[in-house]
Amino acid sequence: MNEPLPAIPRSAADDHAPAAVARRRELCELVAGRALPHLAGRPVQGEEARGKIENLVGFAQVPLGIAGPLRVDTHRGPREVFVPMATTEGAMVASYSRGMKLLRAAGGARARVVREGLSQHPVLVYRDAAAAERARASVPALRGELERLTAEASAHGRLVAVEPELVGRRLVLRLVFTTGDAIGINMAARAADLGSALVAERTGAVQRYVHGEDVEKRANARALHEGRGRSVVCDVVVPRAALVEHLRVTPEELQDIQRTYQLGFARLGTHNGLVQSANGLAAVFLACGQDVAYVTECATGFLELTPRPDGDLYASAHLPSLLVGTVGGGTGQGTAAECLELLGVRGAGGANLFAELLAATVLAGDLSLLASFCTHEFVAAHERLGRNRPPEVR
Amino acid sequence: MNEPLPAIPRSAADDHAPAAVARRRELCELVAGRALPHLAGRPVQGEEARGKIENLVGFAQVPLGIAGPLRVDTHRGPREVFVPMATTEGAMVASYSRGMKLLRAAGGARARVVREGLSQHPVLVYRDAAAAERARASVPALRGELERLTAEASAHGRLVAVEPELVGRRLVLRLVFTTGDAIGINMAARAADLGSALVAERTGAVQRYVHGEDVEKRANARALHEGRGRSVVCDVVVPRAALVEHLRVTPEELQDIQRTYQLGFARLGTHNGLVQSANGLAAVFLACGQDVAYVTECATGFLELTPRPDGDLYASAHLPSLLVGTVGGGTGQGTAAECLELLGVRGAGGANLFAELLAATVLAGDLSLLASFCTHEFVAAHERLGRNRPPEVR
Amino acid sequence: MNEPLPAIPRSAADDHAPAAVARRRELCELVAGRALPHLAGRPVQGEEARGKIENLVGFAQVPLGIAGPLRVDTHRGPREVFVPMATTEGAMVASYSRGMKLLRAAGGARARVVREGLSQHPVLVYRDAAAAERARASVPALRGELERLTAEASAHGRLVAVEPELVGRRLVLRLVFTTGDAIGINMAARAADLGSALVAERTGAVQRYVHGEDVEKRANARALHEGRGRSVVCDVVVPRAALVEHLRVTPEELQDIQRTYQLGFARLGTHNGLVQSANGLAAVFLACGQDVAYVTECATGFLELTPRPDGDLYASAHLPSLLVGTVGGGTGQGTAAECLELLGVRGAGGANLFAELLAATVLAGDLSLLASFCTHEFVAAHERLGRNRPPEVR
Amino acid sequence: MNEPLPAIPRSAADDHAPAAVARRRELCELVAGRALPHLAGRPVQGEEARGKIENLVGFAQVPLGIAGPLRVDTHRGPREVFVPMATTEGAMVASYSRGMKLLRAAGGARARVVREGLSQHPVLVYRDAAAAERARASVPALRGELERLTAEASAHGRLVAVEPELVGRRLVLRLVFTTGDAIGINMAARAADLGSALVAERTGAVQRYVHGEDVEKRANARALHEGRGRSVVCDVVVPRAALVEHLRVTPEELQDIQRTYQLGFARLGTHNGLVQSANGLAAVFLACGQDVAYVTECATGFLELTPRPDGDLYASAHLPSLLVGTVGGGTGQGTAAECLELLGVRGAGGANLFAELLAATVLAGDLSLLASFCTHEFVAAHERLGRNRPPEVR
Repeated sequence: MNEPLPAIPRSAADDHAPAAVARRRELCELVAGRALPHLAGRPVQGEEARGKIENLVGFAQVPLGIAGPLRVDTHRGPREVFVPMATTEGAMVASYSRGMKLLRAAGGARARVVREGLSQHPVLVYRDAAAAERARASVPALRGELERLTAEASAHGRLVAVEPELVGRRLVLRLVFTTGDAIGINMAARAADLGSALVAERTGAVQRYVHGEDVEKRANARALHEGRGRSVVCDVVVPRAALVEHLRVTPEELQDIQRTYQLGFARLGTHNGLVQSANGLAAVFLACGQDVAYVTECATGFLELTPRPDGDLYASAHLPSLLVGTVGGGTGQGTAAECLELLGVRGAGGANLFAELLAATVLAGDLSLLASFCTHEFVAAHERLGRNRPPEVR
Repeated sequence: MNEPLPAIPRSAADDHAPAAVARRRELCELVAGRALPHLAGRPVQGEEARGKIENLVGFAQVPLGIAGPLRVDTHRGPREVFVPMATTEGAMVASYSRGMKLLRAAGGARARVVREGLSQHPVLVYRDAAAAERARASVPALRGELERLTAEASAHGRLVAVEPELVGRRLVLRLVFTTGDAIGINMAARAADLGSALVAERTGAVQRYVHGEDVEKRANARALHEGRGRSVVCDVVVPRAALVEHLRVTPEELQDIQRTYQLGFARLGTHNGLVQSANGLAAVFLACGQDVAYVTECATGFLELTPRPDGDLYASAHLPSLLVGTVGGGTGQGTAAECLELLGVRGAGGANLFAELLAATVLAGDLSLLASFCTHEFVAAHERLGRNRPPEVR
Repeated sequence: MNEPLPAIPRSAADDHAPAAVARRRELCELVAGRALPHLAGRPVQGEEARGKIENLVGFAQVPLGIAGPLRVDTHRGPREVFVPMATTEGAMVASYSRGMKLLRAAGGARARVVREGLSQHPVLVYRDAAAAERARASVPALRGELERLTAEASAHGRLVAVEPELVGRRLVLRLVFTTGDAIGINMAARAADLGSALVAERTGAVQRYVHGEDVEKRANARALHEGRGRSVVCDVVVPRAALVEHLRVTPEELQDIQRTYQLGFARLGTHNGLVQSANGLAAVFLACGQDVAYVTECATGFLELTPRPDGDLYASAHLPSLLVGTVGGGTGQGTAAECLELLGVRGAGGANLFAELLAATVLAGDLSLLASFCTHEFVAAHERLGRNRPPEVR
Repeated sequence: MNEPLPAIPRSAADDHAPAAVARRRELCELVAGRALPHLAGRPVQGEEARGKIENLVGFAQVPLGIAGPLRVDTHRGPREVFVPMATTEGAMVASYSRGMKLLRAAGGARARVVREGLSQHPVLVYRDAAAAERARASVPALRGELERLTAEASAHGRLVAVEPELVGRRLVLRLVFTTGDAIGINMAARAADLGSALVAERTGAVQRYVHGEDVEKRANARALHEGRGRSVVCDVVVPRAALVEHLRVTPEELQDIQRTYQLGFARLGTHNGLVQSANGLAAVFLACGQDVAYVTECATGFLELTPRPDGDLYASAHLPSLLVGTVGGGTGQGTAAECLELLGVRGAGGANLFAELLAATVLAGDLSLLASFCTHEFVAAHERLGRNRPPEVR
């Protein structure tokens, strides 16, 4: 593991004053092993945005804080990091930071990417179902050509699955790619376009749509079991005493609130069984130059909170669809590059590690927030109503 | 209407060079009627982030461009605006801008907020179903007290509906608030806490969870018909000739792709029947100091694309759950405030107008992107495969 | 309460032999207070099917058994009944019967209809969104006329809610009716047709579809919180000892399996959070002359299984959408009428009681089946694999 | 093809009188090539229900009519059949019969089973995610043993896919079987029990649930793309003139109503994009000894209605999850056996043919019903309201 990190310095007097901010930034520079000038205010040059935006007029500036330290056992070994989060929602960074302290008190969480694969679903439409069936039958023989086209479309992408699905007179050509450390959506789209065009030509499709079953940037049921991008699991056993000390709740109280939450989620028909995953992901995405529109698709998954027979808490967050990259997109740019360096995930080889840190961040935030809902702490002043009433049935 | 806006100036030589960027920014300053120094690079001061973030270390910088001009008939009359979008996804601003030009060629779209109301769903748990039924029966009589508590919790919020829903031994206390020009989530949470505590005390609830059926920041089925925040509809009739000229497609081709898309959406079980709403909303949210985590919840809704008997296209976007504000949150801050001024929606009275401009932005982007999928333009180089084949059956 | 019922007589030698069957049927006749000739084999006359079917060629015959006794506290007081179930799925009636014995050992379950209302959703389409908004605004003033039209369409139906919902250029005219002891779908359709035609005429709709948002006979998210037909809750506290004795599981084991089941349901995106509700409802529907196609819509809802601090089990089944009737439809006919008499719910005033008995039946079956999944009893012979392994973490 | 069938004889005077019923039954006997005594009223003996039900007291009797003739091109060649339907919903058989006449006027529909496979999803729970990952890694090597256990569990079943899916600390062991002409659920459950016990033992699972992700008898999102049982597509090109003559609608009118329906389905979050599939499937299931509880799962899928450039209508129904059998379950019994004979699908080799006839039945019913919604025929008397208004925009 990298060396243990100190607690984040805070100024009781005025924590947003220049000195307090500078003190934290200096610590970040120490951790990152480099200067972080853009975070400090040096404007990014317009030329750096080339290829990333049109009609440029300047740069949006969003407040950025750090949470942590977050300790996680990753596929690259144990890591301890400060997590950069950009947001204007007061109390959010503090909430995540509190959860991260809990995870550290538990000895750290464990996180792993358990599946990789960026899917695209071109759709080919045929004259009728008979034609679509014939087309489906011809797909397996085209596998080699599809792989070759993918290789032509990208140096980093690889086609790892081709699954034709018939729906009436349509053929959904499910293609799955690995994309290295990039999200890889442009590469995958290019390969899907070439591949679907090939199949369409060979099979006489009357219409072809590269993104026909358009899973991109929308929460959906399919990805809950297939996953998309990187699927990550983070889990931890939290000692009972640590939970009570840091979050002021018991495992049983978390189980109770979870029971009500899961009923609510079922009634809502949501694909997001986590609690505040959207908050944490959006804040880190924004800090780290990710495409924040993907939060729609990434902030889905499952949370488990189970008291163990020994009185401790087993907790896990499962995020099936993390679409993140540490190369390409907005990652090379000013503050994004600085934040990726701070996390230690910038560049080639960093994407899975980044995904694992994100899953741990989500778990930390969900534990912290659910606990605060149990204790009604965010509304302390009004607690006198409806409280001090022993729960008879949990 | 405000005066017609000129086309966005572009530099064929190098559109990201300082001069080109400055020229556009000057136009923006003219439109906004004020200087836009932070967009130009002047750092925002840390003190301005007070109450919006903890453990501040600096500010994230994200490239920001403009799309437009967008012409919309709003509840405040016709408007013509440049739409600020912060993103690192190349081609996206151009895609939106193209769609906006189409809407202008059609004489402008029309957008209206058709419903307002921020819902919260505290859950009270009882010993058994009999107790929950009794509690439900007592809620109507508490309406006055709940309204009074809301008034105490906020000067701007108003409780407009109280609907108790029984689920087994649980009472979901659906509360709906209007919140003026703020998103109002903190106000609503405070009122929901006070209100649910009151009901819990009077009815002997054994557990109480302020966000028990937690609709916040997750796409969900419930909001598709109830809406949340502001529900907005934007529609337009696009003359056939304008569609062909600007997007190179016919109404019938858009209908065709829409048929395949809707099948895909049904198979995906998604709540987002729009195409790239997440992109447009995330980019404008980021520019305008909105909470981007809400994109999960906001980027849902429905798109209609119907050829009319006269050969023109009827198009509409329905966004049931726009959670946006023009006061509070991140809106008062450096670049956010500047962008809200650019749109002409900053401050009191601006939220519904902002929502209407967002809906028009979404419609513009969806028309543009779907058209490019039809024409396979984003992969023009590889078009030779699978094309030149007359569609026999649409 | 009616008098306690004896255990169902069984013949160890051959329980399907004529004598064993006759003995049970005689008991049923005693309970029903009348002869049950059609159950015994007397053919129903074709004339009795008039108005219920076209192109009649005869009658399907389906084996029918009884489960119970089932003891339920209903809105009409405690009831003890044998539940008629028609099925060809071996072991199913036994499974329900086992669950009912458990409920009786617990002193009986409690069931109540907690909401009534049959919704219809005609859709009116307008030229554009502006026209649809104007139409929506005019609906409240038409309320009186809509009520009058409902009264004309039916002597038993009453219009209890009119809620116009705007979706783009469409107006979903949500109408809710009470329908007495019939399902009332024909009445509601007639009233919805008259009502939607009236609104269409007054507001200049360009299209009108009586079942436009067609909730009929399909599981759906909307009904999970709105309910349709009759919403029923059944709950019970099962003493720990009774649970162990009858089902050989502990409350904690049921909580464990439930945790896994709920994760599965979330992954499946199903609206049915019960376990085998489709089995029980289909079997009783078939026996009692209900429209079995409604099982699609009725077999949705929620199951709670929570260990109490005192070691007992709290269990509940919530069925939001029971569409059942005790008059009209197939209820007047041969075996259906006999079975409704056996349950004591035939005719006017019986529908809510019938719904309550059904909810208790569902709860009994789910407890029984989940327990058998815990104990792996249905595959006892192969238990040696993967067992005898103390669960370390629940 | 078998010989063309005559129109179903009807009696204008009294179509439910014994003579009219007998005349149709005699025609059925001619078609079936055997007597149909149980349909005619001869009671089934209790002994025949052995293994299919417990606590037998008799037999439910449900009116049974025929629809047709239905002409379908199947994988066994063209077929023309009368479809037996048991129901008490007046007008339903007539509605299906009308749709079948349309299909015949179009030269017959085409139907094919496009995928077979009964999935089961046992779930194994581990101490933590690390253990679950290790277990997942060991599954491929166990494939041979799992196949052997399946062979032991059943002579007819075959294990065709084993796909371990990780969710937190759980392993969903997706198993897919082919099951011959039976539904095969008992066989699959046995094999899944044996297989999951083997994996659990080898990998140290702390909990094991044979039906852990319980897809059985519930509409769900997963099956929409994976299918379950038999996936069937039925399509047809209906000449414009035939459509207008038989259903009094144009292809464009069907496209219009479909547009509104699909919006409604999206808002409902339903997995059933067909119109009255539940009706047709329930009625044929009941007639043919199928488990009607499966209608919940079977009545899902997609309907396409697209006007062709030549003015005709392309129509298709896609049913991804038909769980039907022609051997086992209730199929050997009195009226069920008679109805399967009438359809010509009884016994070995019949299941796929049966599935294809069902899909054609569903398509016929949906065309007929949607058309009647367009023409407002079921409420003809009240048509004067809201009509005679030329649709300006479709």
